[in-house]
Amino acid sequence: MGFKLIKEDKRSSARLGKLKTKHGTIQTPCFMTIATCGSVKSLDSIEIKKLKAQIVLGNTYHLYLRPTDTLIKKFGGLHKFMNWNGPILTDSGGYQVFSLAKMRKITEEGAKFQSHIDGSCHMLTPEKSIEIQNNLGSDIIMVLDECAPYPAEKKYIADSLELTTRWALRCKKYFDKKNIKLKKNQKALLFGIVQGGTYKDLRERSAKQLLEIDFDGFAIGGVSVGEPSEKMLNAVDWTVPLLPENKPRYLMGVGKPEEIVASVARGVDMFDCVIPTRNARHGTIYKFKTRSEKIKITKDPEKFYEIMHITNEKFKSDKKPIDNNCKCFTCQNYSRAYLRHLFCAKELLALRLASIHNIHFYLELMRKIRNSV
Amino acid sequence: MGFKLIKEDKRSSARLGKLKTKHGTIQTPCFMTIATCGSVKSLDSIEIKKLKAQIVLGNTYHLYLRPTDTLIKKFGGLHKFMNWNGPILTDSGGYQVFSLAKMRKITEEGAKFQSHIDGSCHMLTPEKSIEIQNNLGSDIIMVLDECAPYPAEKKYIADSLELTTRWALRCKKYFDKKNIKLKKNQKALLFGIVQGGTYKDLRERSAKQLLEIDFDGFAIGGVSVGEPSEKMLNAVDWTVPLLPENKPRYLMGVGKPEEIVASVARGVDMFDCVIPTRNARHGTIYKFKTRSEKIKITKDPEKFYEIMHITNEKFKSDKKPIDNNCKCFTCQNYSRAYLRHLFCAKELLALRLASIHNIHFYLELMRKIRNSV
Repeated sequence: MGFKLIKEDKRSSARLGKLKTKHGTIQTPCFMTIATCGSVKSLDSIEIKKLKAQIVLGNTYHLYLRPTDTLIKKFGGLHKFMNWNGPILTDSGGYQVFSLAKMRKITEEGAKFQSHIDGSCHMLTPEKSIEIQNNLGSDIIMVLDECAPYPAEKKYIADSLELTTRWALRCKKYFDKKNIKLKKNQKALLFGIVQGGTYKDLRERSAKQLLEIDFDGFAIGGVSVGEPSEKMLNAVDWTVPLLPENKPRYLMGVGKPEEIVASVARGVDMFDCVIPTRNARHGTIYKFKTRSEKIKITKDPEKFYEIMHITNEKFKSDKKPIDNNCKCFTCQNYSRAYLRHLFCAKELLALRLASIHNIHFYLELMRKIRNSV
Repeated sequence: MGFKLIKEDKRSSARLGKLKTKHGTIQTPCFMTIATCGSVKSLDSIEIKKLKAQIVLGNTYHLYLRPTDTLIKKFGGLHKFMNWNGPILTDSGGYQVFSLAKMRKITEEGAKFQSHIDGSCHMLTPEKSIEIQNNLGSDIIMVLDECAPYPAEKKYIADSLELTTRWALRCKKYFDKKNIKLKKNQKALLFGIVQGGTYKDLRERSAKQLLEIDFDGFAIGGVSVGEPSEKMLNAVDWTVPLLPENKPRYLMGVGKPEEIVASVARGVDMFDCVIPTRNARHGTIYKFKTRSEKIKITKDPEKFYEIMHITNEKFKSDKKPIDNNCKCFTCQNYSRAYLRHLFCAKELLALRLASIHNIHFYLELMRKIRNSV
């Protein structure tokens, strides 16, 4: 169980690794497809498998509120509930409490909030977050953190990261206590989350504190919250060198294809993002510029892909698939014109065909990255 | 090409037949799944094939307006455009002009209407309807008719059916003229539509007039427009005996499972209806009461199925599939509780999983009916 470093790139900080979880081993660098409420929007779990997704990400906040983690536990966990037997990472629920819930109040104890669904009141503590993720049967559990907004005063970020550290310690203690009887190969991995916003010294302070607690992996959080791409990459630049070599590094909520490559070049191993699926549902489609099996791993990558707005008039009579070289179900079976028509006619199939292609693009991107390290 | 009667039931008017079209042979009695805008809502064409659908129905009105029949013609027809190589029946567009379009006006020439999409003005004549359906590459083409409303004065229905007959003759002439050079196995089949509302003598008059023109098949139209089930079956009772034995009989827009069985018992061969897919999208799911491979073919069938409202609280923790005996993708992979959760969370996947099951139910119903004749 855990991470094994396989190879380090000579010209960058990129690396190849294997992350062994309860439900299988993940090749890193990897991208995690989002299955917010127990489904990757519009796709069934068999399709996700066919797309060769290695791992999906479930959202603790959503699943706790509906259908509830206790219900999912009765089914033997989220894997069985959604019929997906690959690894699952769950977030802590914190990010959604701050971005979706109403009437939230953060105290030392935890985050109090009102459900965005029915207004009911809840308290998410570090212990509760671990409890929920345990009930979901997650393979990779995230500690509860406060994901501070951008921009924010340095004082706010400093206080916030100290709270995050105290919460992380409580998570770790509760996780260890609850799982003490489990054999190693039945145990989830527990990841800490480095905060510190756009301040170098605060990132360092957060990393140092979390390293002392020790986790199975380390995430860089508090990014992808509206800051410019350079500031996000700065946070990566400052944080990665402080993290242990033999633990996986997960950049939360990132990102655009070029951000993923730039972060891999900085030593990041894991990513998740709604971009491929959300953009797909708006008709924004990704396509590689060349057939090359390699991606140049650099901190400032050249544009290696194109974006198509499939509803554009110019695709009206276009008989070609989105990408002639693409092996995804959509490109193997349907034309640009047909996909455009489905979007224009607001047919549900449009959302699914576009999602399949964009997820395939992201997973191919990661395969090409691994092929290039 | 055309219809071959295989077997007649001893105890009812039910019959088995084979209908040979350009794109393959259909076993009758059959149900046609609706692909309004060139997709069966939420399903891709490969799934439709896996469901063993024999034929799909495309809507002329929708496809003419968007993406247009001339565009689809450039793709080699609707089959290639939507990547479905089985038979396709297209309606005439008339029904949608009357039910969806704005500012419609019926004259001897045809039906003038405004698009419900962009308000543009169009004229649907009998010749235009055939032209569009030819462009779509349809296997079974329907004549343009006026689908009179229910209830309606006898005088209105009488005038309307006479217009329908004159339009049917124009359709036939135009169809013959346009397709004169085609070999028999390249030709679409042309179906006439018997009107006459809920009046026996008018049904007889309409049938007699259409039989004189002669068609490859005969539809019973002007049903499923809000009349009670008994009145619909009356129209079937009056009309079927007037139709030739060696031609297929298509009951348009019908219906509920028991209406299909009752109509098969009266000698109907073909059906189409939005019920399985539309109900699926509202969480209304069909399920056979028993595993029996037979359905009792009678004019007044007993209830052989159940309806489940999957969002019902009682399915919250239900680990069973919709139907333990069902071989559909949904039942093979997912529980009632998961499907219920997807509906409650408004996940797109819910609509597709429910549609797959309901279409499978309808196609199984037809298979069991054929097995019982």
